[in-house]
Amino acid sequence: MIKVGIIGSAGYVAGELIRCLVNHPEVTIDFLYSNSQAGKSVDQVHFDLIGYKNLKFTSDINSDVDVVFLCLGHGNSLSFFEQNLFSENTKIVDLSNDFRLKNDRKPKEFVYGLVEFNKSKIIEAKNIANPGCFATAIQLGLLPLAKKNLLSSDIHINAVTGSTGAGQSLSDSSHFSWRNNNVSIYKAFNHQHQDEILETLNSLQGNFKYDLNFLPVRGSFTRGIFASIYLKSNATITELMSLYKTFYIDSLFTHITENSISLKQVVNTNNCLIQLQKIDGKILITVVIDNLLKGAAGQAIQNMNLMFGIAEETGLQLKANQF
Amino acid sequence: MIKVGIIGSAGYVAGELIRCLVNHPEVTIDFLYSNSQAGKSVDQVHFDLIGYKNLKFTSDINSDVDVVFLCLGHGNSLSFFEQNLFSENTKIVDLSNDFRLKNDRKPKEFVYGLVEFNKSKIIEAKNIANPGCFATAIQLGLLPLAKKNLLSSDIHINAVTGSTGAGQSLSDSSHFSWRNNNVSIYKAFNHQHQDEILETLNSLQGNFKYDLNFLPVRGSFTRGIFASIYLKSNATITELMSLYKTFYIDSLFTHITENSISLKQVVNTNNCLIQLQKIDGKILITVVIDNLLKGAAGQAIQNMNLMFGIAEETGLQLKANQF
Amino acid sequence: MIKVGIIGSAGYVAGELIRCLVNHPEVTIDFLYSNSQAGKSVDQVHFDLIGYKNLKFTSDINSDVDVVFLCLGHGNSLSFFEQNLFSENTKIVDLSNDFRLKNDRKPKEFVYGLVEFNKSKIIEAKNIANPGCFATAIQLGLLPLAKKNLLSSDIHINAVTGSTGAGQSLSDSSHFSWRNNNVSIYKAFNHQHQDEILETLNSLQGNFKYDLNFLPVRGSFTRGIFASIYLKSNATITELMSLYKTFYIDSLFTHITENSISLKQVVNTNNCLIQLQKIDGKILITVVIDNLLKGAAGQAIQNMNLMFGIAEETGLQLKANQF
Amino acid sequence: MIKVGIIGSAGYVAGELIRCLVNHPEVTIDFLYSNSQAGKSVDQVHFDLIGYKNLKFTSDINSDVDVVFLCLGHGNSLSFFEQNLFSENTKIVDLSNDFRLKNDRKPKEFVYGLVEFNKSKIIEAKNIANPGCFATAIQLGLLPLAKKNLLSSDIHINAVTGSTGAGQSLSDSSHFSWRNNNVSIYKAFNHQHQDEILETLNSLQGNFKYDLNFLPVRGSFTRGIFASIYLKSNATITELMSLYKTFYIDSLFTHITENSISLKQVVNTNNCLIQLQKIDGKILITVVIDNLLKGAAGQAIQNMNLMFGIAEETGLQLKANQF
Repeated sequence: MIKVGIIGSAGYVAGELIRCLVNHPEVTIDFLYSNSQAGKSVDQVHFDLIGYKNLKFTSDINSDVDVVFLCLGHGNSLSFFEQNLFSENTKIVDLSNDFRLKNDRKPKEFVYGLVEFNKSKIIEAKNIANPGCFATAIQLGLLPLAKKNLLSSDIHINAVTGSTGAGQSLSDSSHFSWRNNNVSIYKAFNHQHQDEILETLNSLQGNFKYDLNFLPVRGSFTRGIFASIYLKSNATITELMSLYKTFYIDSLFTHITENSISLKQVVNTNNCLIQLQKIDGKILITVVIDNLLKGAAGQAIQNMNLMFGIAEETGLQLKANQF
Repeated sequence: MIKVGIIGSAGYVAGELIRCLVNHPEVTIDFLYSNSQAGKSVDQVHFDLIGYKNLKFTSDINSDVDVVFLCLGHGNSLSFFEQNLFSENTKIVDLSNDFRLKNDRKPKEFVYGLVEFNKSKIIEAKNIANPGCFATAIQLGLLPLAKKNLLSSDIHINAVTGSTGAGQSLSDSSHFSWRNNNVSIYKAFNHQHQDEILETLNSLQGNFKYDLNFLPVRGSFTRGIFASIYLKSNATITELMSLYKTFYIDSLFTHITENSISLKQVVNTNNCLIQLQKIDGKILITVVIDNLLKGAAGQAIQNMNLMFGIAEETGLQLKANQF
Repeated sequence: MIKVGIIGSAGYVAGELIRCLVNHPEVTIDFLYSNSQAGKSVDQVHFDLIGYKNLKFTSDINSDVDVVFLCLGHGNSLSFFEQNLFSENTKIVDLSNDFRLKNDRKPKEFVYGLVEFNKSKIIEAKNIANPGCFATAIQLGLLPLAKKNLLSSDIHINAVTGSTGAGQSLSDSSHFSWRNNNVSIYKAFNHQHQDEILETLNSLQGNFKYDLNFLPVRGSFTRGIFASIYLKSNATITELMSLYKTFYIDSLFTHITENSISLKQVVNTNNCLIQLQKIDGKILITVVIDNLLKGAAGQAIQNMNLMFGIAEETGLQLKANQF
Repeated sequence: MIKVGIIGSAGYVAGELIRCLVNHPEVTIDFLYSNSQAGKSVDQVHFDLIGYKNLKFTSDINSDVDVVFLCLGHGNSLSFFEQNLFSENTKIVDLSNDFRLKNDRKPKEFVYGLVEFNKSKIIEAKNIANPGCFATAIQLGLLPLAKKNLLSSDIHINAVTGSTGAGQSLSDSSHFSWRNNNVSIYKAFNHQHQDEILETLNSLQGNFKYDLNFLPVRGSFTRGIFASIYLKSNATITELMSLYKTFYIDSLFTHITENSISLKQVVNTNNCLIQLQKIDGKILITVVIDNLLKGAAGQAIQNMNLMFGIAEETGLQLKANQF
């Protein structure tokens, strides 16, 4: 059994990790570190985890676990590693955006954990920087084109995210009275995930020099990312379908279709669903994921599975919510 | 023109007052007092009030206005009056729950402003204690029975409220990620509005000695109260319809029906809609109001209109949202 | 492996069965019968089931499967059995309300499949009448009291249900524009599930003669039932907690708490969560379940597991949606 | 008083017209034509209009009213006029998309009723083709640029609409269980409103030859359109703010801001709110309107007011829902 520790285990993403890991047949949860909630049982914070009263938050870290998931706020992972040592054999999956870029200051080497892009490196990795949620959706939409140098125009991206994307902190825009039935844009053309996306695209298509125009949108729902991406292209729909299906042929969670898709097809799963259309000289790529799973905790477990040589889908065959 | 001042004018209820009063043909807004927002224009806080840039929050109070609406947090009105004097001629509408009960400690005499119950007193009043939102819905459902001494069994009440009922403060249960698609109960059998209700019922039906079993429920919507009320009764539906229609014959905003009703019929209006059913020896009374309007700001303006001798519906003929 | 067939497999409940059964380690899906959708792959109807293209709807029935789940509209099961024969060894789980009552006309003997009430009979059963969703929530709230003859006053029940409770047929009250942010009551004091509940209560507490006052409410969400139940009682909270905890000591999915609960703690799980309170001489029992799982498909699989002698929770350890 | 008739008066848009017109001080409703609902009172169809029992649907048309609003399904207006004659003096406001384009086959001359674009022609008009909802939002976002020939690159538009935009007919995508918390795209790059938009843009900026890339999105709310529009530009934010503020200086309902905006600022009003940003060589224009008001019924009444020489805002000073 893989002994798992979670740091920052009271937040949304950690909650999702725990929900998945309690049913993971190869895992035992060793500790759930949370300074603020130490001593409480897990169901006092993650309210659905009734029936797991023996699972408690602690302020003690076991430095000898097999793998640690770091769910600290962005910017806190580096100082955490400066203050906490783990055993040589402990693998790390960091879910912050601190170690994703080549030029980030890091305490050790981290492999960028986008499975569909880096699978062979992940299998060999000791430490994983888990991708951002928007970054995951958008890269999965663009990887096959980049790999074939087919990104030949500016790219236009609009991605709507659920409220859990902003974490559990209280703010005016997380208030139910404000957000219910509302829509708004934030960080227009300047979301921090653009850097991750560009670094991957450039590594595949060296000549990539076009604009990535990305509008992040707050939607009136809790879970999921709905991303629409388009660019000019000469490729036919048949070529595109073939290209994407080939690229994702071994991907267990990423699916390609020509049919209309909607967000709830993937909510509460680790799936990514991509619809391709070719209209008026443009490729339209619609991508849906669950921001907390494929965009965070699910992908993190997928990375763990790969690092430990167990079947990629273990613990991740989740029943969709669908409604 | 009636010169109006609002105290605590940055909150939800004050926002509704301002939204109504800017279109009220007999009113001019004299000042909007808010310590926290002083200097800002009204649309920086109540975001829909674009086009009213000249309307600004102030930390100055004009003690000589014709009427003041007090929108302070519950428990703060008394100390406010100890620190602030108004002219002899200034009328007061207090929207807190501080002065609603006979035994509340008050700086002056307040008339309980439930229009359908106290209209003649309100017309003569100088100071109004505006009823609570739940209290308004439930009393409107029970007044005709109480007046005829027909409350002859325990009363069972379940009332679902929108998130605006809890004000704009941030809390775990006001977080969109929590409240969206959720339901929960709070203050079971112990909501503070029960006292208001009982005081009115007792004043009408002296022998009222039954239990009022009231469950307040948090609903997954922003505006409105949906209350179901039932009790045992020998009255026929014909008698009940006649009783209620007679009682409310002069009420401009309270309507009686035998048809099925739903919450959104009254959202964003000052209306109260009451459906009557007689089933298996029980009267079922379903009541819907908008908690911020008929349950707060709308009723406050209705009270003002009555006190100033202008038509009761002035400024309150609001277009329903309906969808 | 248990060979499973589903009749009426294009509806909501059948969709949930399929979602659970594709991950059930002891089950193989033999056929998915749907006249209207025959020939389509499962993901053309249950859109989240991408990746199961080999699973197709058929108009052929294999009469030799190990178990059949019947998901026909209420009132259609009897005529189905008149027209379709299954092998002697085929077990049946009927999810309609056709065979739940003792006096229902039935083609064979059916055991009422409320696990917490009938477990030993279910283990021996050949045919199961799966309980209704409201009936499940309300009975789970009342069983421990009935067993000890502690139902000694009228019972008051308000239960809010998600839109999936009404199935996938289109109607004015299932229209998004109508139901979003809305609340309404239907079948007040006359819901068909009352008979199921009363039959069970009477079988436990022979002298039960009180009124069951049940108000079903349409909520502004898709999944789940939130039921509040109260009655007068002399029992202390300590006695009640002890009574319920003892009664449910072997129940894997039903949990008792004194803490506040909310609907989303159980959505997308097979759990039932019950909060007990004692206030002013009344017991308040709040019960939450997912109407499509514990209230339908989940409980049906739980029944199947018991009939086939496999661990009760197999295939039902579902990750909650929570947000 | 202006005598008004409405054709097709049982639909969503007609409901909004009636809600506004019952409070319009210069209007009397002469007839509400609806074949399907003839004989019913208005509140049996538009449920919030309690208190208007005297207002009934009829199957008779008074051909002598001052103005007729046509709310028929798209494609039905022409045949309606072939079968129904109105007096010479009767003005027409058609809310379908049948007569909006120069080359549409029309029974008489129609002026395109986009107030901010065609005000002087509307004042003189006898017949108005009321703009589409998406078309209104997008044109209001682009008019000032087009007028100055500043549309000098492809234009990228994403616009999310509420469910009322699809009318009250039942469909899979209007089912609450499907649409709640969901997002989806329809008619990508091919929405019928593009023609209206292009015709206006071309009339202002003769050389307009760029692509209009428009993605319509179904949102998880009932009312409103949230449109983001961007294009490349050399103009500074100062120049843009000045340009837009000047262009809309006399517009009572269209407001310009540099602040972040959100959809609910305009829901249940006739307002249009436009936020301007200049980021990385691109203008980002965010536009919000209520699809049923500024995008349909509200603008129709605004057109009526102008044609009859009364103040443009009469009957349209609506209280926002805001929450």
